[in-house]
Amino acid sequence: MRPSGRAADALRPVTLEPGFAKHAEGSCFIRFGDTHVLCTASVDERVPPWLRGQGRGWVTAEYGMLPRATHTRGDREAARGKQSGRTQEIQRLIGRSLRSVVNLKGMGEMQIKVDCDVIQADGGTRCASITGGYVALYQAFQKLVSLGVLSAVPMTDEVAAVSCGIYKGTPVLDLDYAEDSSADADSNFVMTAKGLIVEVQTTAEEHPFEQSQLTAMMDLATAGIAELATKQRAALGLD
Amino acid sequence: MRPSGRAADALRPVTLEPGFAKHAEGSCFIRFGDTHVLCTASVDERVPPWLRGQGRGWVTAEYGMLPRATHTRGDREAARGKQSGRTQEIQRLIGRSLRSVVNLKGMGEMQIKVDCDVIQADGGTRCASITGGYVALYQAFQKLVSLGVLSAVPMTDEVAAVSCGIYKGTPVLDLDYAEDSSADADSNFVMTAKGLIVEVQTTAEEHPFEQSQLTAMMDLATAGIAELATKQRAALGLD
Amino acid sequence: MRPSGRAADALRPVTLEPGFAKHAEGSCFIRFGDTHVLCTASVDERVPPWLRGQGRGWVTAEYGMLPRATHTRGDREAARGKQSGRTQEIQRLIGRSLRSVVNLKGMGEMQIKVDCDVIQADGGTRCASITGGYVALYQAFQKLVSLGVLSAVPMTDEVAAVSCGIYKGTPVLDLDYAEDSSADADSNFVMTAKGLIVEVQTTAEEHPFEQSQLTAMMDLATAGIAELATKQRAALGLD
Amino acid sequence: MRPSGRAADALRPVTLEPGFAKHAEGSCFIRFGDTHVLCTASVDERVPPWLRGQGRGWVTAEYGMLPRATHTRGDREAARGKQSGRTQEIQRLIGRSLRSVVNLKGMGEMQIKVDCDVIQADGGTRCASITGGYVALYQAFQKLVSLGVLSAVPMTDEVAAVSCGIYKGTPVLDLDYAEDSSADADSNFVMTAKGLIVEVQTTAEEHPFEQSQLTAMMDLATAGIAELATKQRAALGLD
Amino acid sequence: MRPSGRAADALRPVTLEPGFAKHAEGSCFIRFGDTHVLCTASVDERVPPWLRGQGRGWVTAEYGMLPRATHTRGDREAARGKQSGRTQEIQRLIGRSLRSVVNLKGMGEMQIKVDCDVIQADGGTRCASITGGYVALYQAFQKLVSLGVLSAVPMTDEVAAVSCGIYKGTPVLDLDYAEDSSADADSNFVMTAKGLIVEVQTTAEEHPFEQSQLTAMMDLATAGIAELATKQRAALGLD
Amino acid sequence: MRPSGRAADALRPVTLEPGFAKHAEGSCFIRFGDTHVLCTASVDERVPPWLRGQGRGWVTAEYGMLPRATHTRGDREAARGKQSGRTQEIQRLIGRSLRSVVNLKGMGEMQIKVDCDVIQADGGTRCASITGGYVALYQAFQKLVSLGVLSAVPMTDEVAAVSCGIYKGTPVLDLDYAEDSSADADSNFVMTAKGLIVEVQTTAEEHPFEQSQLTAMMDLATAGIAELATKQRAALGLD
Repeated sequence: MRPSGRAADALRPVTLEPGFAKHAEGSCFIRFGDTHVLCTASVDERVPPWLRGQGRGWVTAEYGMLPRATHTRGDREAARGKQSGRTQEIQRLIGRSLRSVVNLKGMGEMQIKVDCDVIQADGGTRCASITGGYVALYQAFQKLVSLGVLSAVPMTDEVAAVSCGIYKGTPVLDLDYAEDSSADADSNFVMTAKGLIVEVQTTAEEHPFEQSQLTAMMDLATAGIAELATKQRAALGLD
Repeated sequence: MRPSGRAADALRPVTLEPGFAKHAEGSCFIRFGDTHVLCTASVDERVPPWLRGQGRGWVTAEYGMLPRATHTRGDREAARGKQSGRTQEIQRLIGRSLRSVVNLKGMGEMQIKVDCDVIQADGGTRCASITGGYVALYQAFQKLVSLGVLSAVPMTDEVAAVSCGIYKGTPVLDLDYAEDSSADADSNFVMTAKGLIVEVQTTAEEHPFEQSQLTAMMDLATAGIAELATKQRAALGLD
Repeated sequence: MRPSGRAADALRPVTLEPGFAKHAEGSCFIRFGDTHVLCTASVDERVPPWLRGQGRGWVTAEYGMLPRATHTRGDREAARGKQSGRTQEIQRLIGRSLRSVVNLKGMGEMQIKVDCDVIQADGGTRCASITGGYVALYQAFQKLVSLGVLSAVPMTDEVAAVSCGIYKGTPVLDLDYAEDSSADADSNFVMTAKGLIVEVQTTAEEHPFEQSQLTAMMDLATAGIAELATKQRAALGLD
Repeated sequence: MRPSGRAADALRPVTLEPGFAKHAEGSCFIRFGDTHVLCTASVDERVPPWLRGQGRGWVTAEYGMLPRATHTRGDREAARGKQSGRTQEIQRLIGRSLRSVVNLKGMGEMQIKVDCDVIQADGGTRCASITGGYVALYQAFQKLVSLGVLSAVPMTDEVAAVSCGIYKGTPVLDLDYAEDSSADADSNFVMTAKGLIVEVQTTAEEHPFEQSQLTAMMDLATAGIAELATKQRAALGLD
Repeated sequence: MRPSGRAADALRPVTLEPGFAKHAEGSCFIRFGDTHVLCTASVDERVPPWLRGQGRGWVTAEYGMLPRATHTRGDREAARGKQSGRTQEIQRLIGRSLRSVVNLKGMGEMQIKVDCDVIQADGGTRCASITGGYVALYQAFQKLVSLGVLSAVPMTDEVAAVSCGIYKGTPVLDLDYAEDSSADADSNFVMTAKGLIVEVQTTAEEHPFEQSQLTAMMDLATAGIAELATKQRAALGLD
Repeated sequence: MRPSGRAADALRPVTLEPGFAKHAEGSCFIRFGDTHVLCTASVDERVPPWLRGQGRGWVTAEYGMLPRATHTRGDREAARGKQSGRTQEIQRLIGRSLRSVVNLKGMGEMQIKVDCDVIQADGGTRCASITGGYVALYQAFQKLVSLGVLSAVPMTDEVAAVSCGIYKGTPVLDLDYAEDSSADADSNFVMTAKGLIVEVQTTAEEHPFEQSQLTAMMDLATAGIAELATKQRAALGLD
């Protein structure tokens, strides 16, 4: 049995609140259980220097965590003067994941920055960020369509993310912090609603594990992501 | 008339939610109208090096703002690699204000770090941070009392803060962003519930102004801070 | 009685030497007793990026302290790799204070940087910097007038600064280091010669204090600043 | 057909030269075709602060690339003043991969730092680093055994790494730079000689891809890693 | 007798391998005994900002050392976030030395960056870098001539460098690490093939020394540099 | 003829004011013509970590320049966040030069930091720093003797420094800025009063130069340094 009491294939309660932030062009406050992330999408007329004059757009992400989002207070990265390797890894992952479903040519020469800030952490913050970031980004594109800047939302697919692990020998979906701390493998799956792979990262925690276990986790993730995509569509009023 | 339609001596709607954060020893989510700040108080067994072995405690503060808390997105300080001068000024002010009502000897050799993170900004973020930070800090001390670490809350007074300005010649209380942008003077008052001064900072925006106008703003602030102190006590269940 | 033996309303001996620096467009070596600050004003044709093409000028300030200006040696900020929060606070204050009496439109698109470097410190360095910085800035404008770049000095008023404190219950003017260390309140007043407020910052050191004490300090400062302004005019040969 | 002319399941010519560096306790110069990496393992008596006094050891990795290892010169990270997100991601991956096959308790309280410096780059530098880093680390442990510091090499398994991709629809092994630039998916597999998973990272380049393609790449990687492990054993004289 | 067993005026075995690096426009792997440095020369179309539009070129150098090039591992400068004073001193010396024999006008508006990376260190790394850097730079110019970008190699002379020291009272040429550690004086000579001075740096290690000893070291260096220049010409196929 | 009108072997007017700084244990304000440097020596009970517990002392130096010490304002290094390569080179040179005449064992386990801050620059700042730094350091040792901390000044010799150059073919002593800008060679000599070499650095500016010219400059420097040493002794009251 899982510490959370959930079934092996059960997500935590997930809620998405689009339009949470007053100022941003798009936003979503997402909860995966006690993990709470505020995602905002900000439109910037300038693209990065290496992309100027090509008529293409760019989507990038930044990730942060409030110092006391966690059990014990972490150093504030702004005060330490640099982002940790972990932070950079996560924000690069979020950016790649979101770009994989955007038609960068179709958005024209502009940039959208998706900020994912963890207000409270209980495991799975990067997956919640991608799932909520998709909604914030979609909403920003909707706003640009409503303003006549774009003729259609330039997104080619839906993307969401969920973690899986091997807990006492059993593959389980959507680990919370307590489960994550004692899991034998830690995997993050980023997929489209139809189960196509955008990114998979899996790491053995103590001991290398069997390839069949990766396949079992992938099956759990495929179902979980389909469920998350349904919630994304509902939040965006697309169903 | 003020853009907000408020009377010259009217605060914005103010709410305080103590215990907002799951992990922190003390916390308060405070709203001054559309300005929203999450304040957490974290207990740390280690004091700063220059204070070790003296049997005294320390209270310090850090301040941050989510990149899209504002009308246009600001750079993330962690990504830029340093805190701005404005951020440092504000967090030093918060720390001094809170320490002014703490009996540092009475708290023993420990440190409490108060993090004030602006989730949404509409003027007055430093005042909301001090007002909410007081509640978070008090709550952390209450927790230490309940755990038997301290015998009493080592605070000597209440502290709150509010801004004032001169709007079209008239002194007004608690400026929102629209008012702040066109005010002739910008003042921040940090006081105790009884109107004693902890810190006053006032700045002419375009033109130097009369000393009598500072006195008029101080009167407004004295009343506003008494009102805020009442809300603090209510939030902490002290009345 | 004050440690310095001065009357409550007495400034330390103040001297101003304009033209002290060989290379700068304007300069002033100012002494407030044993506090010695070299202020230079440097003309730069480029304004900050956010001001380009608007036909307006800018005045900014930087502040520094030699490592052994103080009783015990402080770290060199260049070696530590960043300016302290205190340094940034002070240089922002100097810049705002000087800009408050400059007609930025009248100076055209150029920037003047006022550097205030503390050669020796004995309390009141930020006030000496503002008072001396005004003279250096005025002298730089005079030079631009003499070169035919400007038709008149684009300053709308005089500005000077002085500190006050509550020493053993009595408000006193212009604290030196020994007095500052044991004062109950620490205030810095930046005013025009006529007593209009440019900036006031007051902080309780140990205990919150009465509003009437702030008023008493403001009266002392008003007289002290009028005296400093007389010295500024004399130094600039304007009387 | 692949640009390199290799069969889909063919590695590039791979060579390993243990003992390449004069000063290091362990070292290996590894070539994956035109990708050349110098791996050194340095023994340090001090473990990181959070591990002190626990009787356990630590293995960590750092990664770097000479500025002109690549087609066009990259900025020197030491000159820019920070390591890129990519560098940090890679060195964290190398460290995790090596630790997964080390008995940290068995090595006692010491730290081994594995430096992987890319002398020339032609794709697959992180995989070459892990594969060569294993040999350098093993050699350092052998030296500690020969010195009597350890009684046996505290490694529990072999680890190696290889990349795979989808080139024009076909899964292929060990991408060089030209192939990597036009592949549809980019995967890095870190496995033991027996095919147990240590870490898998796969990313869609342009379009999300099928789960079956991940499986196909995993099969190629399993065979490739077995081949690399054979070369590692030969280089270490263990067969 | 010297620890190395060499005669006082004997260089270590020196080898130069031009064209060592696959991607760089010019390169040279140079060995002074166990000191091994990889020098690459990279052509950049952009000159530094202060040189733009003047039709002149620039040559600059960067220097680095692999962390375990030395007996004990040194910190990685990229990880520490800054280059040491020693590194900056050396790379400035290499840049000045190479520029002294380049006709900057003759190369047109372009920049060549010479990277000198120490793969293994045993004393004399800066001298090996200058000597090998000259060959890499020359080769890059040859490439630009062969491409028709330049009509001739814009170098006015040859430059090489060697160290000397006072070992137990005797002036000796080309110190290795063991000799350097116990020498009484440490000198670096950068000269042209004909013995003209480009740069001389000499430092007393323990005690100030006689001017005649500097003269004696200069004589040794003059002969050693003539020998190195012969090897440079041979490596470049210029004899 | 030199621009300064001085004879080839003439120093600029040199003055030394020991005890210039109120707080430092030792200090000297030194003028080489229009080059003015404030040198202070600060005693610190702690030695650098690598020297602890060995009973030996350390002398180190830091160098800085006020932003407008020069003809055009330079960036403030504290604001840029790092010391330039030039600054680091100079402060390392000052430190080595001063240590060469200190008996580090004789001073016991303490550290003296010599700060050399250029108030005004007109060429030769590093030489003035060494010459004035010696006096500040000596004075600090005298103070430690007078306090009974040391029994004698632990200095083994005197040290001073002067620059030389080749101006229009003629070797000249003590270049000012105008001369330095058009000299063909730039040399800095650090010697003892008796002409023993502590450090020599010479650099060709445009074209490599003859070894005989170095010898000629060294003769000028030997006489100039003897003259400076006489002034040092006079300033310290040692004659």
